[in-house]
Amino acid sequence: MNWKSPDQDFAARARRVLAECRALAQMTEEPGRITRRFLTPPVHDVHAHLSARMQALGMTVRVDAIGNLRGLWQPSGPQAKRLLIGSHIDTVPHAGAFDGVLGVVLALELVDIALVEIALLQNEKARDRLALEVVAFSEEEGVRYATPFLGSRALAGSFDPALLAAKDADGVRMDAAIRAFGLDPEKIGEAALDPKTGDPGVLGFLEMHIEQGPVLEAENLQLAVVDGIVGQTRLEFRFTGQANHAGTTPMHLRHDALAAAAEWIVAVESIARSEAGLVATVGKLDLQPNAANVIPGQVELSLDLRHMSDLTRGHWVRYLIHAAQSAAHKRGAEVEWQQKLDQPAVEMDPGLTMQLAEALHACGIPARRMPSGAGHDAMVMAARFPAAMLFLRSPGGISHHPDESVREQDVEAALRVGAKFLARLAATVS
Amino acid sequence: MNWKSPDQDFAARARRVLAECRALAQMTEEPGRITRRFLTPPVHDVHAHLSARMQALGMTVRVDAIGNLRGLWQPSGPQAKRLLIGSHIDTVPHAGAFDGVLGVVLALELVDIALVEIALLQNEKARDRLALEVVAFSEEEGVRYATPFLGSRALAGSFDPALLAAKDADGVRMDAAIRAFGLDPEKIGEAALDPKTGDPGVLGFLEMHIEQGPVLEAENLQLAVVDGIVGQTRLEFRFTGQANHAGTTPMHLRHDALAAAAEWIVAVESIARSEAGLVATVGKLDLQPNAANVIPGQVELSLDLRHMSDLTRGHWVRYLIHAAQSAAHKRGAEVEWQQKLDQPAVEMDPGLTMQLAEALHACGIPARRMPSGAGHDAMVMAARFPAAMLFLRSPGGISHHPDESVREQDVEAALRVGAKFLARLAATVS
Repeated sequence: MNWKSPDQDFAARARRVLAECRALAQMTEEPGRITRRFLTPPVHDVHAHLSARMQALGMTVRVDAIGNLRGLWQPSGPQAKRLLIGSHIDTVPHAGAFDGVLGVVLALELVDIALVEIALLQNEKARDRLALEVVAFSEEEGVRYATPFLGSRALAGSFDPALLAAKDADGVRMDAAIRAFGLDPEKIGEAALDPKTGDPGVLGFLEMHIEQGPVLEAENLQLAVVDGIVGQTRLEFRFTGQANHAGTTPMHLRHDALAAAAEWIVAVESIARSEAGLVATVGKLDLQPNAANVIPGQVELSLDLRHMSDLTRGHWVRYLIHAAQSAAHKRGAEVEWQQKLDQPAVEMDPGLTMQLAEALHACGIPARRMPSGAGHDAMVMAARFPAAMLFLRSPGGISHHPDESVREQDVEAALRVGAKFLARLAATVS
Repeated sequence: MNWKSPDQDFAARARRVLAECRALAQMTEEPGRITRRFLTPPVHDVHAHLSARMQALGMTVRVDAIGNLRGLWQPSGPQAKRLLIGSHIDTVPHAGAFDGVLGVVLALELVDIALVEIALLQNEKARDRLALEVVAFSEEEGVRYATPFLGSRALAGSFDPALLAAKDADGVRMDAAIRAFGLDPEKIGEAALDPKTGDPGVLGFLEMHIEQGPVLEAENLQLAVVDGIVGQTRLEFRFTGQANHAGTTPMHLRHDALAAAAEWIVAVESIARSEAGLVATVGKLDLQPNAANVIPGQVELSLDLRHMSDLTRGHWVRYLIHAAQSAAHKRGAEVEWQQKLDQPAVEMDPGLTMQLAEALHACGIPARRMPSGAGHDAMVMAARFPAAMLFLRSPGGISHHPDESVREQDVEAALRVGAKFLARLAATVS
């Protein structure tokens, strides 16, 4: 293996990263839009493009049975400890060019500069200590099979084989889709990394991802170190009152399902504003009969509530269930609820996260720490391996939208931090 | 003309009234459901049925050019003053058997007993003073041409000929529908009653109608004297915030259109509860994008606000427009609004209404006075003639529904009151 020539021009590297993301955005199911679901034909193009880059970097390339593209860069023997770096290459329909893909392209750029930085540490043995495996997860968004994180679940050994019978919107079973892509669904178990089964020691997993929210932009910061992924509750409520004539039913004889729901929606917003780090959203609401001159008889709505502390989350969920009952009963209405999701919070690894924060400090960048309000592959990986995550500022907080973007100077900062992180990791790995 | 034989059995008359309503309910556009829109074929059957009854009562029958069936009972010469009594014979789709029709059938029953009661007053000249015209209005609900009160507008001389070009859901123009029914749309002007143009003096108009609300039932009362028809404002609001990720957007960076709307809906309910006689309803609400994990970016909703005082109504409309702006601006959102309806309140005639209230007292029935929260033909008639209106209790407050009903003892009470009203009117007419 040849060492890459030193290249300290991080700005030029950042431009190359952005150009790569835009090139990959051309590989889509729909001309003119970025839509690339799990194992659809353009995924072959993405694999070909990334594989060529990996091979040029001297990496050993394979595609595992769930369709993850994995490139191993192992400059010395199998005794080296391995850091996984990556993110996902699938997208939502009509997506932007950076959600997921950016983390994969950044990882390859880091491989390109890794040894330069390691060399700068003047620690000659670092190269013997650290291997890098870049992972382009095949599935994270959950679009095609209504189940997210298929790629990282396979790596973490938490993929449920029952999912293979799931069907997509066209009736194609997941196992058939995997075969059609040229892979063998019976080998998904072999995709799992297990430090306990003789697999060379995995140091951990690093994911770099756009924030997909407005926090960093609002605080004029470029990057953040992710503490963890918030836990999430999803509930559905049905308020049932009585539909009646809007003109002939006096206020004291009404059972207005929407008035009850509205009082409760105000409470949802109010408690979320009162508790640091809590977000709570009523995003979906359907009214019956939904006519201007009829008092609403029924309201169905959703509650999405997230917090880094599962205890805090549980407390407010119980509070809001009581508040819904109170708002309904006040008006002679009823309320029923159903839990659709109860996902615990996942903390990133404290040690790896601290090292990432120190890399930011070393680069002169404030190490803002924040939870992620959305799920990521790092959440699934964290169940089995030390995981850390770096957010890049999302201009306008926009994601899952063609206007999604990322700033060149923020990509440059992420590269500097990533390089510093790897260098320090290599220096400290034993 | 022969006097009808005295029949004091009001209970038997009430049963006959209910049986007549049920017979008319069989005349429908849809088998198994009561649906009888303006000038559809079953209206011919209703006309034939009611005409036969009118002729048996010795009435002169005609159908005017808008399709109102009108029976004149004029025992003596044209010098008698004429009281109009009636309601409408069209229905909403999938209607009940009593909305409108009950008032027409009650009017005919009153003709049947009118002179008995007049004779009981032992005022022999009463018969020379009072004539009765029973009107079965052809259109009140506004279903077929999205415009209500076509029948009473023609009588009151307020029918706008431009309406003749309106088309129904099948593309049939109103004038073509009138011709197809066998009438001449050019003669609608002749349907107008005008006391100023030599038409025998019209004393006024009496409408008997089910309450279509829960007030009388809640107060355990049978009948009410209607003070007037409330004025009505219909507004449409659009709250525009910013759609965003429900997990990654902290509360202080949100512009949640639904939270703003919810705060305002609570205010709508609150002010309507605080002002006697005010009803205010948000009956329609549509959310964008309406997804559980997305902060609502836009909410469109309706406001229906009614009160007997136009000043009070105007005050609260202005208050709620300010409140909507305040709820939106607090959240960095915007609100726009559009007025869809601004219909002034209409008072019933104080003199005729007092006579009706006295008839209730004379029958030993509490004369509860209340406004009507819904529009009626009496509202249109009141613009040109003294009008009075009697409500019959609506069991369950149900109307515009197959379960709509009326109690036999309430129909009996209405007949007693109506008979007393006519007798006293005949005695006092000069």
